[in-house]
Amino acid sequence: MDQPNFANINHSRVSFDDGLALDCGVTLRRLDVAFRTYGSLNAEHSNAVLVCHALTGDQYLAERHPVTGKDGWWQSVVGPGLPIDTDRFFVICANVLGGCMGSTGPCSPRDDTDLAEPPPWGTDFPPITIRDMVRAQKRLIDHLGIARLLAVVGGSIGGMQVLEWAVTYPEAVFAAVPIACAAKHSAQNIAFNEVGRQALYGDPDWHGGRYWETGRVPARGLAVARMVAHITYLSEQALMRKFGRRLRGTQAESPFQDVFEVESYLRHQGGSFVRRFDANSYLTITRAVDWFDLAAEYDGDLAAAFRGTRTRFCIISFSSDWLFPTEENRAIARALNQAAANVSFVEIATDKGHDAFLLDEPDFHRALAGFLAGCAEHAGLAE
Amino acid sequence: MDQPNFANINHSRVSFDDGLALDCGVTLRRLDVAFRTYGSLNAEHSNAVLVCHALTGDQYLAERHPVTGKDGWWQSVVGPGLPIDTDRFFVICANVLGGCMGSTGPCSPRDDTDLAEPPPWGTDFPPITIRDMVRAQKRLIDHLGIARLLAVVGGSIGGMQVLEWAVTYPEAVFAAVPIACAAKHSAQNIAFNEVGRQALYGDPDWHGGRYWETGRVPARGLAVARMVAHITYLSEQALMRKFGRRLRGTQAESPFQDVFEVESYLRHQGGSFVRRFDANSYLTITRAVDWFDLAAEYDGDLAAAFRGTRTRFCIISFSSDWLFPTEENRAIARALNQAAANVSFVEIATDKGHDAFLLDEPDFHRALAGFLAGCAEHAGLAE
Repeated sequence: MDQPNFANINHSRVSFDDGLALDCGVTLRRLDVAFRTYGSLNAEHSNAVLVCHALTGDQYLAERHPVTGKDGWWQSVVGPGLPIDTDRFFVICANVLGGCMGSTGPCSPRDDTDLAEPPPWGTDFPPITIRDMVRAQKRLIDHLGIARLLAVVGGSIGGMQVLEWAVTYPEAVFAAVPIACAAKHSAQNIAFNEVGRQALYGDPDWHGGRYWETGRVPARGLAVARMVAHITYLSEQALMRKFGRRLRGTQAESPFQDVFEVESYLRHQGGSFVRRFDANSYLTITRAVDWFDLAAEYDGDLAAAFRGTRTRFCIISFSSDWLFPTEENRAIARALNQAAANVSFVEIATDKGHDAFLLDEPDFHRALAGFLAGCAEHAGLAE
Repeated sequence: MDQPNFANINHSRVSFDDGLALDCGVTLRRLDVAFRTYGSLNAEHSNAVLVCHALTGDQYLAERHPVTGKDGWWQSVVGPGLPIDTDRFFVICANVLGGCMGSTGPCSPRDDTDLAEPPPWGTDFPPITIRDMVRAQKRLIDHLGIARLLAVVGGSIGGMQVLEWAVTYPEAVFAAVPIACAAKHSAQNIAFNEVGRQALYGDPDWHGGRYWETGRVPARGLAVARMVAHITYLSEQALMRKFGRRLRGTQAESPFQDVFEVESYLRHQGGSFVRRFDANSYLTITRAVDWFDLAAEYDGDLAAAFRGTRTRFCIISFSSDWLFPTEENRAIARALNQAAANVSFVEIATDKGHDAFLLDEPDFHRALAGFLAGCAEHAGLAE
């Protein structure tokens, strides 16, 4: 497939010419953070809610997406009168460091050469961590003049960022809502990510990561990566309910055709993904997620990471999520309890799997709305 | 990767020149069934136990494997004094139709041309079903002069074959032991198979399925297919216990290297698989498995498939198997109960996942040994 044009969009962003020092030891000389905001910042700068997006999400959470033309990915959650109510809150969402929607990442021109037109970083982009992503977001929040976020909210690896925010910048986070996530990435999840990476490496159009030289993109490999990931986002029940064993038509003549509806669906998911996402960003971000282990710096004692925190936490899990099972979310709540933190834990009963945080789940929306309203009250926010 | 030499092995086999009519309507003009036997057939021909192998298994279940040089895949189950006791039973295992270890499959020369040296079937091999596999095995059993098998035993898609044997040839099956399987393939399992197939199609060395023309094999695509399948064979607990988040060494310089032990393990699994398995066989067999739905011909009424059966069943599942969960095994037992069949159901408590049927699981081995000993007694087999 030829290069899609998503890299040419004029994203709203801020550039930090003093760069960013990364966990790996490398310093990016220049840092761009692309972001979108919804609602208005109040005079006290006390009503800001930062939303952290998931692996393949982006900053366009409550508006038409500039590439796909579809609704924002959290259009049902963020808006006037919605759970994250833009009539009350100033909502910010930034494309993650390493992403491909305007923030610095593998698509960005390298900043370590003297060339007039430097090539993109590609696979030479330094390895980043979830904490690096959060550091980049903190720069944006400082730039916006916000000393303390009313809340940081996010699902999946967005939830990992929420946890990292609370640990790294506890004074800047009044409330934290990590949704459908974990304090570390499991061996099984690392394994699924590795399958996707291997599929990418095996695509000749990946071209050793220098696909911009050819004008083509590793569409087949990236689609396979997306397909396997997509299975993990759904529950077996959801797949059975949506597709069951329904055939696309009559039994195919050859085993090498689409036969079942679930296959067409997956191929469609894979195919549309490659038109909006960069392969090297996918590699960079999945690796950052694999490395995530919040307790690692505390000798494996997760409670120690949260010791003394004054942040209010609401941990939310979904009963049929097998990518980040309730048990892993509960482990976070348990550690917070051990740290005597202010924490509530909600498991939403649903058969929709991990993706439930993106879907129309009234119980989830009620829990989120209720917690944020309570936080606004505790923070002394005017009605 | 260049073609491995597994296709050149001189397997022990029998050829049926009258061919085999397949469910798809095509008739193979010639049918080869490669098989191995262990123990001795008694004078009454009443002590035969047929073992059906899983997706990527083969007939070398209790001896050194001719390609890998490793022990047989059921060396701990089949042998003198073992659960399937070769001092008492005559054990037969045949390479499945569609396989690549000597039975007719995509590697076999096509039989629908007049060419002196016909090319392999490749992707033109007709689509086959689990029932077609069982029909081929029945020809072998007839050839060996066995009217009734004392037992048919198999795990995973071997278990699907066991069920199909019991439904298609009830008089020929005294006892049936379907292990870690299901009466139909779920949408999630179809989806995982489809990821593997897409990875294969995306490998340029697959060459539209005609890779024998190039002397190369689609090693990367087949390895990715094996990797994703392998994850489904293990439980999350087993992966955490075996590998956890252990790193291979220090944190890598680049995200494009092996970092975690679980990755190296998976890559090794993928890499060794391609040296012993044919890509088009993989496509053919996974498709046959996807099509498997035992109740489909009975308007979805699984009990109707078993009505009137006199076969004794022992259904065995493993508590941490998420590929063929206990619930799906229990559904088979429930249908057999509804058909007033002779059935026992055993769930083995283990954290080893689907692969437990291949591993050292004393409770499983005891259940299997006990059931087969009981069957031998009921069948009037001499001690």
